[in-house]
Amino acid sequence: MIQPHDDTYFMKRALQEAEAAYDKGEIPVGAIVVIKNQIIARAHNLTETLNDVTAHAEMQAITAAANFLGGKYLKDCTLYVTLEPCQMCAGALYWSQISNIVYGARDEQRGCIVMETKLHPKTVMKGGILEKEASEIMKKFFIEKRNLN
Amino acid sequence: MIQPHDDTYFMKRALQEAEAAYDKGEIPVGAIVVIKNQIIARAHNLTETLNDVTAHAEMQAITAAANFLGGKYLKDCTLYVTLEPCQMCAGALYWSQISNIVYGARDEQRGCIVMETKLHPKTVMKGGILEKEASEIMKKFFIEKRNLN
Repeated sequence: MIQPHDDTYFMKRALQEAEAAYDKGEIPVGAIVVIKNQIIARAHNLTETLNDVTAHAEMQAITAAANFLGGKYLKDCTLYVTLEPCQMCAGALYWSQISNIVYGARDEQRGCIVMETKLHPKTVMKGGILEKEASEIMKKFFIEKRNLN
Repeated sequence: MIQPHDDTYFMKRALQEAEAAYDKGEIPVGAIVVIKNQIIARAHNLTETLNDVTAHAEMQAITAAANFLGGKYLKDCTLYVTLEPCQMCAGALYWSQISNIVYGARDEQRGCIVMETKLHPKTVMKGGILEKEASEIMKKFFIEKRNLN
């Protein structure tokens, strides 16, 4: 059962963002930032729409959360993201000094774990929350993309 | 002697951007993107002004260059940046598939070399162009900052 405000609850919200990306033909990754059980940023991948490799869900969520908080550090915040962050996003999260990163599916090819990106010493990362749902939407996207080409 | 359109020429332009950052009280890092000897993007660090850890010079330059080119890949482009890119920026440059990265000063603490960030296989990086000028403006900034606090 999903409890309000547990990891599964928030990851569901990140998955809704991934679905919004999917609907736009974007690689379906979604992210939200939470502080004290409140969602302060929601974003999804927009690299195709914006023609911009930096427009990953996490990058936009970091910018939006800092804007909400009025300061650039995301201490006491948790980022929920459907896919393990890449080097760029993990590097941005390093600068933000975010407290927690929670991801859904692993990215075995380009994720920060295999790339050995350094997280900030104050940051704790865990994965596997709604992993099945997060990887299924990715698989669905890439199968459809292959069939179109 | 500086030849038009050699590395020193373009790094001077990146240094002008670093000076613009310095004048705003920002950590003085500047970047430009060049394709076929033409500057298509100029940017400087704006993390304090925008309250945003993602607003590094390189990130803005990548976004601006892609916008100019009308596509998100920076093939055949060279990024000139006064300071060795961090994990985030090197990660963004990875996604951009940029051809060349030329930096001024090393960042021994947080640069992509010590952090072991992976560059794209198509990307060649070199450093040390106007290294003295690039590190002097950084030193000047941090000395003044210390004296103010």
